[in-house]
Amino acid sequence: MSAAAKIRLFAEMALVPGTEAVLPGAASHYLCTVMRQGAGSNLAVFNGRDGEYDCTLVTPHKKNAVIRVNRQTRPFEAVPDLWLLFAPLKKDCTDFVLQKAVELGAAKIIPVLTANTASGTVRLDRYQAQAVEAAEQCRRVDLPGVAAPCRLDELLSGWEPSRRLFLMDETGKGAPAATAFQAEAGHPAAVLVGPEGGFSAGEIDRLYALPFVRGISLGPRILRAETAAVAALSVWQSVAGDWITREKN
Amino acid sequence: MSAAAKIRLFAEMALVPGTEAVLPGAASHYLCTVMRQGAGSNLAVFNGRDGEYDCTLVTPHKKNAVIRVNRQTRPFEAVPDLWLLFAPLKKDCTDFVLQKAVELGAAKIIPVLTANTASGTVRLDRYQAQAVEAAEQCRRVDLPGVAAPCRLDELLSGWEPSRRLFLMDETGKGAPAATAFQAEAGHPAAVLVGPEGGFSAGEIDRLYALPFVRGISLGPRILRAETAAVAALSVWQSVAGDWITREKN
Repeated sequence: MSAAAKIRLFAEMALVPGTEAVLPGAASHYLCTVMRQGAGSNLAVFNGRDGEYDCTLVTPHKKNAVIRVNRQTRPFEAVPDLWLLFAPLKKDCTDFVLQKAVELGAAKIIPVLTANTASGTVRLDRYQAQAVEAAEQCRRVDLPGVAAPCRLDELLSGWEPSRRLFLMDETGKGAPAATAFQAEAGHPAAVLVGPEGGFSAGEIDRLYALPFVRGISLGPRILRAETAAVAALSVWQSVAGDWITREKN
Repeated sequence: MSAAAKIRLFAEMALVPGTEAVLPGAASHYLCTVMRQGAGSNLAVFNGRDGEYDCTLVTPHKKNAVIRVNRQTRPFEAVPDLWLLFAPLKKDCTDFVLQKAVELGAAKIIPVLTANTASGTVRLDRYQAQAVEAAEQCRRVDLPGVAAPCRLDELLSGWEPSRRLFLMDETGKGAPAATAFQAEAGHPAAVLVGPEGGFSAGEIDRLYALPFVRGISLGPRILRAETAAVAALSVWQSVAGDWITREKN
């Protein structure tokens, strides 16, 4: 909705008020070439660890623009400890899931390869670029992590058991989402959404046998995979995450 | 996710077990021309008021296919009394909102024209066709209503006050979504999502002055309009709608 008109950029760099610094290449390109900003223009920069800073473009350059860091405008703030595990979908749907997961405050996004996962190739660099862009838009000051794709069985065998793994179970056997999320609020969490073809019966059995897995139902209608991902993240944030208080950055 | 392989069609027609009947033109075209089904093929048909029926294609025809209605497989079931009011967005985003709203069980969808609404033309026939397609996919047995676009002020002046109007307030002044929805569970409800440019200050003031309006916050991050729509519907269903029980159709 009405994002601030001011340009907001992620840049992997130190941000020290009162100093000048060179913007990395991609950020310089975006600011000076794509957005055609000139000397004196105002922008917000975050580096994923120190909060957000008001900055001024001093020397425009397509690769090595110089900015002055004026002052911190927001402190660093982590999102809640919620991961999204999703089986890559068709390109449009994957793009959509990535963008929405960042807006909805997923701390980490892990592409998971399951028996029925359709997409053979995962373009990790592209996924990461999309996550950065979404973080810039939605005003996150952290950088959402996008992990390399991982096979479901590998992911499960290395799982830290204190993190609840909420399985979006389309068979309807799971518990109602809000109740289940709320009952385990305070625990690190992950929501797992299967591919268009669903999980295999073997995957479902293996998942339910694990002590940290909780089966979840998202109601009586059939949801597409991307809808299930967005719905699960939204409901979790609203009953166990940072939508409980009314603070707005 | 794994929808039944069987073709599922909405058709505006009487469905009486043991009888044969002619499918309407659009459904005939889809079944026989697009999906190339031949005599004897099995399908599910719902008419939006009598539940779902197992049917057999008797005489394929591109305009007037004849089916036999075998038996009712699911009774009629209404979705909860939740409306979505949204300001039309760019085409892709509007398509997305319509599809997801149907999956998420919105009973009625009303395009609302606000001060900052970008899209000048609303293709109501196209919206309705998309809603039908989404209903077929997600196994609804009712037909989601898509209303003609309406100006916000007109909509408000004719509002039935028993229906709570939950305003997605991007200024952050609203109450946390889950709490507010749960507090008024049982009331007919509507969620209102503004355009990309947000509501005008005058619109916000007018809305908050109305006794049936409740301001809602969807957390600290800036959500795009289409994300806010999907999030609001998901959270409402999960704390006040039909995701509370675990029944699956």
